[in-house]
Amino acid sequence: MTGRAIGLDDIEDLALGAVVLGTGGGGDPYVAKIMLAEAIEKYGPVPLVDAADLDPDGLLLPVAMVGAPTVIVEKFPNGNEAHTVLRALEEHRGDKGVAVMPIEVGGMNTLFPIAVAAELGLPCVDADSMRRAFPQIEMTLLTLDGISSSPMTLADVKGNYVYFDAQDNATGEKLVRACVAQMGMIAVMSAYPMTAAQCARHAVNGSVTFALEIGRRVNAIQQGKPGAYDEFLTFCEAQILFTGKVLDIERHTTAGWARGTVTLEHLDDRSRVMRVDIQNENLIAFEDGVPLATVPDLITLMDIETGVPMTTESLGFGQRLHVIGMPAHPRWITPDGLALAGPRAFGYDLDYVPLGGAR
Amino acid sequence: MTGRAIGLDDIEDLALGAVVLGTGGGGDPYVAKIMLAEAIEKYGPVPLVDAADLDPDGLLLPVAMVGAPTVIVEKFPNGNEAHTVLRALEEHRGDKGVAVMPIEVGGMNTLFPIAVAAELGLPCVDADSMRRAFPQIEMTLLTLDGISSSPMTLADVKGNYVYFDAQDNATGEKLVRACVAQMGMIAVMSAYPMTAAQCARHAVNGSVTFALEIGRRVNAIQQGKPGAYDEFLTFCEAQILFTGKVLDIERHTTAGWARGTVTLEHLDDRSRVMRVDIQNENLIAFEDGVPLATVPDLITLMDIETGVPMTTESLGFGQRLHVIGMPAHPRWITPDGLALAGPRAFGYDLDYVPLGGAR
Repeated sequence: MTGRAIGLDDIEDLALGAVVLGTGGGGDPYVAKIMLAEAIEKYGPVPLVDAADLDPDGLLLPVAMVGAPTVIVEKFPNGNEAHTVLRALEEHRGDKGVAVMPIEVGGMNTLFPIAVAAELGLPCVDADSMRRAFPQIEMTLLTLDGISSSPMTLADVKGNYVYFDAQDNATGEKLVRACVAQMGMIAVMSAYPMTAAQCARHAVNGSVTFALEIGRRVNAIQQGKPGAYDEFLTFCEAQILFTGKVLDIERHTTAGWARGTVTLEHLDDRSRVMRVDIQNENLIAFEDGVPLATVPDLITLMDIETGVPMTTESLGFGQRLHVIGMPAHPRWITPDGLALAGPRAFGYDLDYVPLGGAR
Repeated sequence: MTGRAIGLDDIEDLALGAVVLGTGGGGDPYVAKIMLAEAIEKYGPVPLVDAADLDPDGLLLPVAMVGAPTVIVEKFPNGNEAHTVLRALEEHRGDKGVAVMPIEVGGMNTLFPIAVAAELGLPCVDADSMRRAFPQIEMTLLTLDGISSSPMTLADVKGNYVYFDAQDNATGEKLVRACVAQMGMIAVMSAYPMTAAQCARHAVNGSVTFALEIGRRVNAIQQGKPGAYDEFLTFCEAQILFTGKVLDIERHTTAGWARGTVTLEHLDDRSRVMRVDIQNENLIAFEDGVPLATVPDLITLMDIETGVPMTTESLGFGQRLHVIGMPAHPRWITPDGLALAGPRAFGYDLDYVPLGGAR
């Protein structure tokens, strides 16, 4: 597939789909949409390319915002951070990048790399490393395949810059997270430098297009098209786990993450209660204490009428939401995938439960 | 002064003097003494040079261990960390170092750079940046003169490496400290890269020799020479603030530092109690709540009979100690010096008190 590009008309759909796959995390797309629109107006549509179509030895430039998404809303990058971290990566490799690469899918972290690509005059690779958002940098399919996240480069809005060469990806996460906490909880990062051939082989290819296609279907819901919700669920292989009203939200930002829980009361049966646990992303959905969906499967909260997918920071008391469960990329539902990003990796004394739980 | 060198015979005296100037911090010299002895046996005595005698444009290689001194006793560098951080500095500057430079004076951090110099086949500069030990990296006379601590390089025993380019020295401290906490509380750092001319102008020159001279006088105390304690006090312009028995020690390692307090009961009058507050180094000595010595002046605890100077980690219940106050380098006792490293810089609602307090 060639000739694709992300233009102004795609931004809204891409943001919607990215928020769905962001499972509550990955950042609020509001500022990222403005940023991407400005970049496209200035530099034109951004070519979206398959890694397999690039020079196999070509260096990719992965980039993401890292920190607490609740903070991203207030502290936006000034534009220099991405240049700093990517130029440093190029200098280290002694090579020029051939394309920018998103590290995760999320409201912020899908749109931001495309804006960066526009500014650098490069295409964006239609790929990411997880086909969702995760709160920790080592939680990627790349880690499962033994690809190092180092060297990693990190820059903040004040011009502070840090370069990391960690011996393993979990240590890399700890070091970056510790610095981000000192950088006002938000910074721009490059990690997992790789060639196009490595991306084609080890990353999730097609995930930007997947987000765009999901977004188009969410858009149809928002426009009130008949059957649009079903069409969306079918496309995503998703299911509605619970439909309720937000009773309670508990959020706090700590150690570089936004943590919390949201509690919903079922619309039809007020005795039924669902609790969704959050660490940047929605991790586990419990109905009356029984897990119906667990990480790495995706849990997304969407307005029952407008179809608006919720980021953690957009949750509000009284909202009437579907709790939607969506299967993770199949590579995650393997022994090593679950060891890296299943419930126990987040401190739960709980095994992975297939979508819908034991019902 | 030329032709000086640190040989095997100097190690014990240098360690004693460095612990005195380390004011409880700067690390236990035990392992550093072994390390330096091995390096001197292998490579020969280490020339000690004045910065003013070096090529003014020559690059100095400052090096120190950073973390909680309580941990240094158990986790010692494997020797590669210093090479990693200094080679990275040289690569960044595109120049080869002409001499190694101690960053602070302390049991560990005076001996360690000399051992590194031996291994690199370089001389050691007779200088440091504070003429004592301080718990925070930005607390140097170099900061007062506007010299950046960045770029800083950091490596741990496992081979993890981090490079920092911070916009100000206080931010550099925060970023390094955050990473050290993830590196098991101890790592090897290079910071304040500078030329010999900058060292000659802005650092404390002669401080290694100063430590050695102090150590010789402490050695005389240990050998029971008559009048040795007085001779030591006179040389250091020091005074005995309190003489007591250790009643209580409270220590904990947190956020990359060893914090605590030691409480002593006066030997002659048990109604008199002195409390010394510690953050890696001894910060303030209070008698019955009244400060008699405050940072940046030096507070050193020494055995009343053997003259052994105490590091924080060597303190023990029942020890009979002199609490000795020694004036800081005069550059510290200025408005900007006290703002950077006076009691308020450590969170005390307390002004600097000249040695001996209001007595």
